[in-house]
Amino acid sequence: MNALLDVTAIGNAIVDVIAPANESFLGDEGLAKGAMILIDEARATDLYGRMAASLEASGGSAANTIAGVANLGGRAAFIGKVAKDELGEIYAHDIRAVGARFDTEPLIGGPATARCLINVTSDGQRTMCTYLGACVELTAADVSPELIEGAQIVFLEGYLFDPIEARLAFAKAAGLARASGRKIALSLSDSFVVERHRAALLGFIEGQVDILLANESEITALFETASFDEALREIRKRVEIAALTRGAQGSVVLAAGSEHTLAADPIDRIVDTTGAGDQYAAGFLFGLAAGHPLEVCGGLGSLAAAEVIGHYGPRPATSLRALATSRGLIAA
Amino acid sequence: MNALLDVTAIGNAIVDVIAPANESFLGDEGLAKGAMILIDEARATDLYGRMAASLEASGGSAANTIAGVANLGGRAAFIGKVAKDELGEIYAHDIRAVGARFDTEPLIGGPATARCLINVTSDGQRTMCTYLGACVELTAADVSPELIEGAQIVFLEGYLFDPIEARLAFAKAAGLARASGRKIALSLSDSFVVERHRAALLGFIEGQVDILLANESEITALFETASFDEALREIRKRVEIAALTRGAQGSVVLAAGSEHTLAADPIDRIVDTTGAGDQYAAGFLFGLAAGHPLEVCGGLGSLAAAEVIGHYGPRPATSLRALATSRGLIAA
Repeated sequence: MNALLDVTAIGNAIVDVIAPANESFLGDEGLAKGAMILIDEARATDLYGRMAASLEASGGSAANTIAGVANLGGRAAFIGKVAKDELGEIYAHDIRAVGARFDTEPLIGGPATARCLINVTSDGQRTMCTYLGACVELTAADVSPELIEGAQIVFLEGYLFDPIEARLAFAKAAGLARASGRKIALSLSDSFVVERHRAALLGFIEGQVDILLANESEITALFETASFDEALREIRKRVEIAALTRGAQGSVVLAAGSEHTLAADPIDRIVDTTGAGDQYAAGFLFGLAAGHPLEVCGGLGSLAAAEVIGHYGPRPATSLRALATSRGLIAA
Repeated sequence: MNALLDVTAIGNAIVDVIAPANESFLGDEGLAKGAMILIDEARATDLYGRMAASLEASGGSAANTIAGVANLGGRAAFIGKVAKDELGEIYAHDIRAVGARFDTEPLIGGPATARCLINVTSDGQRTMCTYLGACVELTAADVSPELIEGAQIVFLEGYLFDPIEARLAFAKAAGLARASGRKIALSLSDSFVVERHRAALLGFIEGQVDILLANESEITALFETASFDEALREIRKRVEIAALTRGAQGSVVLAAGSEHTLAADPIDRIVDTTGAGDQYAAGFLFGLAAGHPLEVCGGLGSLAAAEVIGHYGPRPATSLRALATSRGLIAA
């Protein structure tokens, strides 16, 4: 079936505010390293006031993935809610500048564009505090049938289980995708999201999801097991394809009757791990949409993840397509 | 004479919008590589729409220098005009987060916070288009006598010769500094600024400036000569100290009866030269205020410039103080 787009994603539209931090700062602020927590506006203002000087960059998990897909040469679209403010304009610019479609109407007269306060420790780990702002106003009405029905893969982020209206948008998108014979991919996003919404996520996965992306802590949290192997066996029963990342240990790609274990790409220097999972998803989904074998999809994911870890910011800073062709992963 | 502050700077308060670009983009947009031009709001919107996805970071030449001075452990303050908007709040956060004082009242009901659209080519060169926004509303009333009279060195950026009101602020600051026996330092900022305001700059230098910072193209533009050596002879007659940078060729520091030629610090990889001159100034002025010999001041400048060239963004991404102590330039 012809598709106008390779991947359409729905996600929280968030500007990242990225600052270096030391371990004691995390302790003083009561932040668990590596996690994402939701905070309200007052806490965001308060925490920001104590953070170091920062860089700002468009982020949001699924949107980062879309930026990666477009960077690889894929046809991509994003659905997410910003406010009509300065950061919202920057956000829209950045997602369109990579060549992705972004038509969601900005919110007028409500909360500001969302921001994620990211404290990056010297080991490159990121600890995230998200003020959802305008994201909580994403509704089913924002889910454009054209963008869902026209995409080979519809990609949803687990973070959308937090704002209640977004879950309805999620359900609408899944219904449209299913009815059009499109594949549905889901990222589990974060182990705390999995803890908060385990039953709903499992139900959604079993009922709707074709392709699951998760890291080790998320997939083991989903099945409440300490064993990665057990989690593999559980997820394999429930989805067609699963791509599971394990940080420096690489990734495992599962499908009916096959299992590929991939090494992580070598990295000179870990600067900021923000976006690593998002970019793995970008490479993997781009590869799937282009019809590549699963091990090539995983290789594209590893390549994209390794690139983004080497610099601040959650999106590619160079041409992933050029990198991937120079490695022989895709044809020039 | 005791001073509360090491360096107080007055400058344009500008948020940098940093995007990768290729050479043909510069050509298509009619931009001369490496230069800074002023643009109006309409052109800024238009150009931004065609730029690649970007990072945002607080910038502004003199403010970058202040961030570097504070990072080195110096007591520093900045005077500059932002608007009361989202980017203005980010700007104020960033300059205060490095430990600098920043008390200038934000502008209400006028133009937005200034932004500099920076296109960075793969050779690391930056080409800048600045929309001055709220900066044109900086006036003499914003020049707090306390911050000027309390600083060992008052640092002014040549860019301030563009907004006319700022020139009056400049003059007020110089008068206060002179009356309090403080040193006045000036950066020439950009060779196009020198072309636009040569006579006024020369008059100011001859009448008021103790310490001049410039790069090779700026100092030769000032004296309308192709010869760096001739420019050296000319500037030496006019100021007490001059620190002149020459990119990869290092720098020359001149004072009465002395001349130091310094090599540039080795750099692994040139990512983005934005802020290189500003950080040289930071190291140099911090060193002067701390009473170090001129060759150490130049060494601190070279170290700070080399750090900022290795990453995106115009301000230090690491502790310059730790770097400088590890090299034995300053005591731990």
